[in-house]
Amino acid sequence: MAIQEENRTRRRIVEAALYLFWRNGYAATPIAQVLDRAQVNSGSLYYFFRAKEDLLLAVLDLYVQSLKPVVVEPVFGEISDPVARIFGILGFYRRNLLATGCTYGCPIGRLALEIPEEQFKIHKRLADNFDGWTAAVESCLAAAQDRFPRGSDLKKLARFVLTVMEGGVMQARAHREIGPFDASVEHLRSYFRLLTIEADRQKPKPRQMKKPKNRNSRRR
Amino acid sequence: MAIQEENRTRRRIVEAALYLFWRNGYAATPIAQVLDRAQVNSGSLYYFFRAKEDLLLAVLDLYVQSLKPVVVEPVFGEISDPVARIFGILGFYRRNLLATGCTYGCPIGRLALEIPEEQFKIHKRLADNFDGWTAAVESCLAAAQDRFPRGSDLKKLARFVLTVMEGGVMQARAHREIGPFDASVEHLRSYFRLLTIEADRQKPKPRQMKKPKNRNSRRR
Repeated sequence: MAIQEENRTRRRIVEAALYLFWRNGYAATPIAQVLDRAQVNSGSLYYFFRAKEDLLLAVLDLYVQSLKPVVVEPVFGEISDPVARIFGILGFYRRNLLATGCTYGCPIGRLALEIPEEQFKIHKRLADNFDGWTAAVESCLAAAQDRFPRGSDLKKLARFVLTVMEGGVMQARAHREIGPFDASVEHLRSYFRLLTIEADRQKPKPRQMKKPKNRNSRRR
Repeated sequence: MAIQEENRTRRRIVEAALYLFWRNGYAATPIAQVLDRAQVNSGSLYYFFRAKEDLLLAVLDLYVQSLKPVVVEPVFGEISDPVARIFGILGFYRRNLLATGCTYGCPIGRLALEIPEEQFKIHKRLADNFDGWTAAVESCLAAAQDRFPRGSDLKKLARFVLTVMEGGVMQARAHREIGPFDASVEHLRSYFRLLTIEADRQKPKPRQMKKPKNRNSRRR
């Protein structure tokens, strides 16, 4: 019982920090605000986390754990086509933008630019988050491999998809409109279409009966 | 003379803030640090800037003014092909990443994700910075219009190029390696190549002398 209670308190602290770091940023969030939001005293917080950095690491672990149940699985449950699933994941961010008047920022992207470079452990955990995201996209690309040219590096292509999401979200937030996000996704879609055309061109043509051109040629 | 001196002081303050906001972020930079770096007293700073937000606006104006002399013109002076110029601009960010052990973050991108959404004026000025960047890229795209399919929306395509830069820089910083940036630029290059193939396919074929297929058809 005591352990369950401890777990609940820890979870409440981490969720409060997750919200505040996303909403206001890491540097701009004093520990006192986390305590206030989580309704715990500082003794409880420091029992679980020695320093603010440890709290951020726990937040980033929670993001890693949440990726599948929150972002990936709802999309995969609704959509079966592997390439459509990728655009379904991008649709998750579009909905977040629309629901927030285009003020939504990707929390991982924000921290990747905010956290000082000296904090290696944090950046490693941010990279883990990016890797989890691109692994989900890469699994879709692999399931649709025949739609991409032979020898395509699907890991790099998955990173490109993440690039499109992050760059699109960032511009939508600055412009306070969905246009730049949509433009980015539209071009990704166009790129995928052209890659499929290229892949089709590489495929061996089905054998056809040769139609003789004319009587002369038939005689040769 | 007094006005020149004033301008110099103001410039020193803005440049100190520009460096610190880029290096440590906006929220994480106390005004005292700006005073220290600029070697001015708080009276001087508040003479020019009523609030920290005004200082940030001045920093963003300086970025707008610096775009051409710092980013665009050096590339345009060295490279004449319009599409190569775009990749030359992307090369500017690649060099910044390499020169900083991949810890470089785009200052505008960072602020776009950091600054609270309530600060409309700041976001407007961030959007102005993005617009200046994409306008430079759009001018290159327009100069190479025949390499893109008819009816291409070059403004949207320019935004896509910015998306690629921002998303690539962000991932390179998290992973602390140039790979994710290079992967993103490589796919942009591949997309441009496929767009040019599509554009070529749309062009009317040069007229050729018709070769009669066979004698029969000639008689009709």
